[in-house]
Amino acid sequence: MFSVLVIHGPNLNLLGAREPEVYGSMTLDDIDRSLVEMGRGLGLREVKTLQSNHEGVLIDALHEARGWAGGVVINPGGLTHTSVALRDAISAIRIPVVEVHLSNVYAREAFRHTSMISAVCVGKISGFGWRSYLLGLQALVDVMND
Amino acid sequence: MFSVLVIHGPNLNLLGAREPEVYGSMTLDDIDRSLVEMGRGLGLREVKTLQSNHEGVLIDALHEARGWAGGVVINPGGLTHTSVALRDAISAIRIPVVEVHLSNVYAREAFRHTSMISAVCVGKISGFGWRSYLLGLQALVDVMND
Amino acid sequence: MFSVLVIHGPNLNLLGAREPEVYGSMTLDDIDRSLVEMGRGLGLREVKTLQSNHEGVLIDALHEARGWAGGVVINPGGLTHTSVALRDAISAIRIPVVEVHLSNVYAREAFRHTSMISAVCVGKISGFGWRSYLLGLQALVDVMND
Amino acid sequence: MFSVLVIHGPNLNLLGAREPEVYGSMTLDDIDRSLVEMGRGLGLREVKTLQSNHEGVLIDALHEARGWAGGVVINPGGLTHTSVALRDAISAIRIPVVEVHLSNVYAREAFRHTSMISAVCVGKISGFGWRSYLLGLQALVDVMND
Amino acid sequence: MFSVLVIHGPNLNLLGAREPEVYGSMTLDDIDRSLVEMGRGLGLREVKTLQSNHEGVLIDALHEARGWAGGVVINPGGLTHTSVALRDAISAIRIPVVEVHLSNVYAREAFRHTSMISAVCVGKISGFGWRSYLLGLQALVDVMND
Amino acid sequence: MFSVLVIHGPNLNLLGAREPEVYGSMTLDDIDRSLVEMGRGLGLREVKTLQSNHEGVLIDALHEARGWAGGVVINPGGLTHTSVALRDAISAIRIPVVEVHLSNVYAREAFRHTSMISAVCVGKISGFGWRSYLLGLQALVDVMND
Amino acid sequence: MFSVLVIHGPNLNLLGAREPEVYGSMTLDDIDRSLVEMGRGLGLREVKTLQSNHEGVLIDALHEARGWAGGVVINPGGLTHTSVALRDAISAIRIPVVEVHLSNVYAREAFRHTSMISAVCVGKISGFGWRSYLLGLQALVDVMND
Amino acid sequence: MFSVLVIHGPNLNLLGAREPEVYGSMTLDDIDRSLVEMGRGLGLREVKTLQSNHEGVLIDALHEARGWAGGVVINPGGLTHTSVALRDAISAIRIPVVEVHLSNVYAREAFRHTSMISAVCVGKISGFGWRSYLLGLQALVDVMND
Amino acid sequence: MFSVLVIHGPNLNLLGAREPEVYGSMTLDDIDRSLVEMGRGLGLREVKTLQSNHEGVLIDALHEARGWAGGVVINPGGLTHTSVALRDAISAIRIPVVEVHLSNVYAREAFRHTSMISAVCVGKISGFGWRSYLLGLQALVDVMND
Amino acid sequence: MFSVLVIHGPNLNLLGAREPEVYGSMTLDDIDRSLVEMGRGLGLREVKTLQSNHEGVLIDALHEARGWAGGVVINPGGLTHTSVALRDAISAIRIPVVEVHLSNVYAREAFRHTSMISAVCVGKISGFGWRSYLLGLQALVDVMND
Amino acid sequence: MFSVLVIHGPNLNLLGAREPEVYGSMTLDDIDRSLVEMGRGLGLREVKTLQSNHEGVLIDALHEARGWAGGVVINPGGLTHTSVALRDAISAIRIPVVEVHLSNVYAREAFRHTSMISAVCVGKISGFGWRSYLLGLQALVDVMND
Amino acid sequence: MFSVLVIHGPNLNLLGAREPEVYGSMTLDDIDRSLVEMGRGLGLREVKTLQSNHEGVLIDALHEARGWAGGVVINPGGLTHTSVALRDAISAIRIPVVEVHLSNVYAREAFRHTSMISAVCVGKISGFGWRSYLLGLQALVDVMND
Repeated sequence: MFSVLVIHGPNLNLLGAREPEVYGSMTLDDIDRSLVEMGRGLGLREVKTLQSNHEGVLIDALHEARGWAGGVVINPGGLTHTSVALRDAISAIRIPVVEVHLSNVYAREAFRHTSMISAVCVGKISGFGWRSYLLGLQALVDVMND
Repeated sequence: MFSVLVIHGPNLNLLGAREPEVYGSMTLDDIDRSLVEMGRGLGLREVKTLQSNHEGVLIDALHEARGWAGGVVINPGGLTHTSVALRDAISAIRIPVVEVHLSNVYAREAFRHTSMISAVCVGKISGFGWRSYLLGLQALVDVMND
Repeated sequence: MFSVLVIHGPNLNLLGAREPEVYGSMTLDDIDRSLVEMGRGLGLREVKTLQSNHEGVLIDALHEARGWAGGVVINPGGLTHTSVALRDAISAIRIPVVEVHLSNVYAREAFRHTSMISAVCVGKISGFGWRSYLLGLQALVDVMND
Repeated sequence: MFSVLVIHGPNLNLLGAREPEVYGSMTLDDIDRSLVEMGRGLGLREVKTLQSNHEGVLIDALHEARGWAGGVVINPGGLTHTSVALRDAISAIRIPVVEVHLSNVYAREAFRHTSMISAVCVGKISGFGWRSYLLGLQALVDVMND
Repeated sequence: MFSVLVIHGPNLNLLGAREPEVYGSMTLDDIDRSLVEMGRGLGLREVKTLQSNHEGVLIDALHEARGWAGGVVINPGGLTHTSVALRDAISAIRIPVVEVHLSNVYAREAFRHTSMISAVCVGKISGFGWRSYLLGLQALVDVMND
Repeated sequence: MFSVLVIHGPNLNLLGAREPEVYGSMTLDDIDRSLVEMGRGLGLREVKTLQSNHEGVLIDALHEARGWAGGVVINPGGLTHTSVALRDAISAIRIPVVEVHLSNVYAREAFRHTSMISAVCVGKISGFGWRSYLLGLQALVDVMND
Repeated sequence: MFSVLVIHGPNLNLLGAREPEVYGSMTLDDIDRSLVEMGRGLGLREVKTLQSNHEGVLIDALHEARGWAGGVVINPGGLTHTSVALRDAISAIRIPVVEVHLSNVYAREAFRHTSMISAVCVGKISGFGWRSYLLGLQALVDVMND
Repeated sequence: MFSVLVIHGPNLNLLGAREPEVYGSMTLDDIDRSLVEMGRGLGLREVKTLQSNHEGVLIDALHEARGWAGGVVINPGGLTHTSVALRDAISAIRIPVVEVHLSNVYAREAFRHTSMISAVCVGKISGFGWRSYLLGLQALVDVMND
Repeated sequence: MFSVLVIHGPNLNLLGAREPEVYGSMTLDDIDRSLVEMGRGLGLREVKTLQSNHEGVLIDALHEARGWAGGVVINPGGLTHTSVALRDAISAIRIPVVEVHLSNVYAREAFRHTSMISAVCVGKISGFGWRSYLLGLQALVDVMND
Repeated sequence: MFSVLVIHGPNLNLLGAREPEVYGSMTLDDIDRSLVEMGRGLGLREVKTLQSNHEGVLIDALHEARGWAGGVVINPGGLTHTSVALRDAISAIRIPVVEVHLSNVYAREAFRHTSMISAVCVGKISGFGWRSYLLGLQALVDVMND
Repeated sequence: MFSVLVIHGPNLNLLGAREPEVYGSMTLDDIDRSLVEMGRGLGLREVKTLQSNHEGVLIDALHEARGWAGGVVINPGGLTHTSVALRDAISAIRIPVVEVHLSNVYAREAFRHTSMISAVCVGKISGFGWRSYLLGLQALVDVMND
Repeated sequence: MFSVLVIHGPNLNLLGAREPEVYGSMTLDDIDRSLVEMGRGLGLREVKTLQSNHEGVLIDALHEARGWAGGVVINPGGLTHTSVALRDAISAIRIPVVEVHLSNVYAREAFRHTSMISAVCVGKISGFGWRSYLLGLQALVDVMND
């Protein structure tokens, strides 16, 4: 039985509260609840979620996850495209990490087409809105079970 | 009730038959069977699959899909990184298309980090082996149901 | 008296059938008929047209045109930006080839600003919708008459 | 009934007088006469032509054309590849502008492959010598009639 | 009546205390006092100022500003050139943000010529020392009053 | 007591007369009147304004300004991104020059993100419409008074 | 005893028939006969040759070669510089492939200096006209014998 | 008598605890103890060490070091390649800073070959594992003594 | 007996009047007098000089030089790095043109390292102050005498 | 009857003596002996070989070869990618030169994918170990016999 | 007991004799004496030093060092940024090599930020003047002792 | 009274002996004699000339010139575009160096448009054949006399 950490990066706390016509009316709490519920259905011991706008907090959480989690689902927000430190953290903890994005980053500005972390993650899911998280959790569980 | 087309691009016919230690012992037929079975479970009318090493055949199939399919899952293989014609076909048919890849393309050669088709697909899933297809089908059905 | 081959590349078969508000209600058949009729008016022996989504078919047709056509009008669609093989075919057949495009490619994505074939064509016409073909045929006949 | 302005940019005044083996023996006056005559045949009220080696004069003329012309045919010569000011002028006057070039710019130096103005013109015709102008006028009239 | 948040990014706390011959003897406190005073003159309800060397703190402050401020003046220091997360925060809060810089960044190293946030700010003022802040506050008030 | 020259580059003569929904109904004359009036309020001896679509005229005016003006506010329009000659003129006259832009150039095409003149100006203000000029004049007066 | 497949890519069918002053009077049939004859001299069981202008046909042939050939000599023509799909096919079949070119590609256009397939071939021979094929066959036999 | 601050950036807290076969069994505590001991041997008043995964904490510490330290040894981890804010902090504090790295960054991914901070440090030492720190301290003391 | 045109581009009219410590106390008039005098010594029929800040004036002068001059010495100032129109003028007039620069452009900003005109001039002399002109005239006369 | 010079560039003297598992146990002497023997079989008058780690020595040898050799086989080692001087020497001597490489340079670091000399050589052979030399000699003799 | 070779590349013979205010009054002989003395203190059998302005001499010396030295300290001067041949020599000799530089190359011209040899050296020390050598020797001895 | 060193880089020894239709029938000896003679006319104590294909020899000669020459004229041939070591030598010797080239390097391959040494030379003369040397000597003497 695995536990899983789900990490939401900068600005994702605003989900649902802003631009519902674009991002839908799902708040981050709604997504977290769906993930916890889905985790139960998949037989996970625990799904913990964390949101922070501080890169350092995300890195600290990744480090700690080594002690209790079998894998991580991460949406690093804007840090995706810039943070070598986050990449190094993912690479260092040696547990499978799945990268997810709400939007189709490839249909947006060019600087969003590059990800500093994809190369050190197991895989990547983008473009399916809040469902990217659920698909990511499903994928992670499959990987952990292998 | 939707029907779905699953397209496998160049060289994917060799799956399973080559390098089982890398790609596993699943053949393309095995994957296709899983997709058909999963489609049934998801309440789809039909899941048709197609593999070709010919760009033109893939484009023809995308065009025809307008007449009978509600969406497409596509792994364009090496054409992912080069084919504007495939991109234009996806863009033209106006039904949702999900891009999937077996491997984590971002951990491979730099020319694989670019996709000509991502910007015109709904979303993208990569790195989870044959399960990328199943996740892609699941994601597509969610999109079609919206 | 010259004969002329008009080649339509990938996805142009969908013309008229899709997005009439963008591309107008002219189908590819309509355009072909206009070309044939205009050819008659210009005193051409024959105007043959061909559409294919297969790069190889287009190259084969260019090769065969050496035997019967005095010149070629080509809209290579998405292959414009990527196909060295098509360029080599145009260069090899040693009859004048005119490049045409329906849309103003320079007002679209950056990858459409590059053409692999312009340097080996006589000239280029873009942005005038279906009339680009007629202008191209007119230009080709003038070139052949020189 | 429309009037049309035809603009010739820097160095085009030398046409015909220099290198007749390359550019033919047509002078700019010859071309202008052909355009005026063709304009009559196309039912235009007036075809005015202007040549200048001064970017500012070309911009002034574009501005004034708003008051009397239904469209513009322009061959900006070397300014094609460098002038943002010319681009802004074309974009500002809100009447259709057609870009023409005598030579096949894509078969020449790399810096000639870029046009600052193509994105704000209706369309572009290049490579057919003095006939590029006539094709451009024909195309412009079709656009104005739409 | 509007309130305004003024944000000073990394290293700006050292102002005045270091290199007075370069940056003048104005400390950040002096600037903040000038801004508060000017805000009173402009009829603002409140001008709050914040300095932090932590990207996360700046993002948190931007988020909270949605609740009480009508606009933001920001000098993101070195984060200007690198932080997609900060850009996303500015873009998300949907209140006008004005970017200011003490120095003429275009006369310094090439990496300072790029700003990740300019495209999502209303406007930008740079090169006028501490007066850039006052000009920025003036400009913001004008924008808020529109 | 200082005098100031305000220079408007190519195409700015069209302000107000075109696209009032975008640029507002202020004409260049309106802006010039505001500047003259503001100059009076700031205790300037004189504010002269000049618009030209000719690069050479702008350079000549900059040269002459050495004889009578204490500083310059300039909006070089499209020349901003291309003119080394203008840059050299600003650099040569050795009086403070402030660069202003109506629009947020960083939210437009990539070629507008580069300025040939920023490095030799005192500072830069962009994105605040006609108010960019007033802010620029204010900033220039502060600089001249230092 | 090995068998060998020799693949000729797009446009090589025109060899000999066109521009004999450049490419010599050797047709592709002549080259194929030389290869077959040389194969006999080298003790090969069989030398099969294939020309196609269709990328898909070349990939299919490479796949089939796994079943009967000990190695491949390939001149992919214009596909050399663009086809990831061809590269993946060569990489997948796990038998030695030798890349040959008639002309010295490095003395031609810049886009011909890049090869998508060189990194997955054993070696490369270019510039020796039809003899590049014979040298390639010799080299391949040596590699297969190792 | 000088005091020295040694700063360890993101992920360096994991040293020794992970991949001992790669990084050796030295923990960060071991390294810190060696540095303190070496500092004593070199006649330093004090060697303080700090590790944080938070960029802001590192910047704060650099600022404070102005008050008590004669120099700094820093290994900024992944921030090396991205942080302009860190660079500005080093540049601002005006005491000598020595950059050290455990691994040979030039034998790793291309994005590690660039350092945002090298230009504002005194010097750089990389590739000698934990000994890079000791060499860095030695070098710093020599610089401070000059 | 040849006549020669010497062209000074934008901003060179300020020579001598500004920054004598950098450019010396030679004015453009002084240089012109030296050139005329040297021309006499070299047996030239006439040396005419022209300075303008208007690109169009320089192009017009080049065109006219075809009628009376055997060669041209040109210092295009800032237009050197940007003007395709000037390049085309030099290329069109078919008389030898020598490019000169006062300063060592290669020791200045990177954008000054590129010249649009060097490829169509006979040769280039830079870095010797006002003597670059005299050396250029000497070189031109040698070329004309060949 | 022709004579041939075979040139081995920097570091090739270490062949065989180092890393036999990679480069085989053939020393440079062994290769030279094979070349001399093969030369005899091909009816050459003489095959002289030269190895040097000094670029100047290689250039001197190329110059002297004009006097006695009908062609050259050269493996310039690391100079391949950097030496314009070597390129100029090959270009100047006007006898056919064949470029050979032991390894498949295209499967190694990116800087090895560029050759300064390929454009001025007749052809290129790479990837076949010591046999690249023998194939190169064979190819050169064919070229000299043409 | 190890012996060590210290290599000084082009122009380092001028040390001390030129610009003592920049490089100090230490001559290369002084540095060499310090290295020899330090070597004795570190228990080395011998420290040999070599300076040459000839790339080939440096490569020869590296090759010979395989026979007698346990490691190398090298400052390749300007060859650092350009010499693939030197890189290959270092890579081939399979003994540890430490790269040192007197100046902080990252605070100088951009072309000095790239090193062809860093990736094949053990580590790198730059910016500490003549002390870079001593630190390099210390580091090398530690590496050899491991 | 000054002495001058004239340096000819790689391949210039072949001058006159090869391609007289291109480079004229002047040999390097002829040029050297002209330079010596011109030096006498200019009142120089001595003009020494040196040609070598060895970079190291050129650097050694530059170093020695510090002892006896007042300035240097150098044509570094192919080393112009690649040699940082040569640049450093010129920069170190602190006597004026003039760069000359026979051909118009800007009308040749792109890699010849870059010079590693121009920024550290006084000035540059190119395109005037053997007269470039004489012009260079004239220019150098003027510089030395200043």
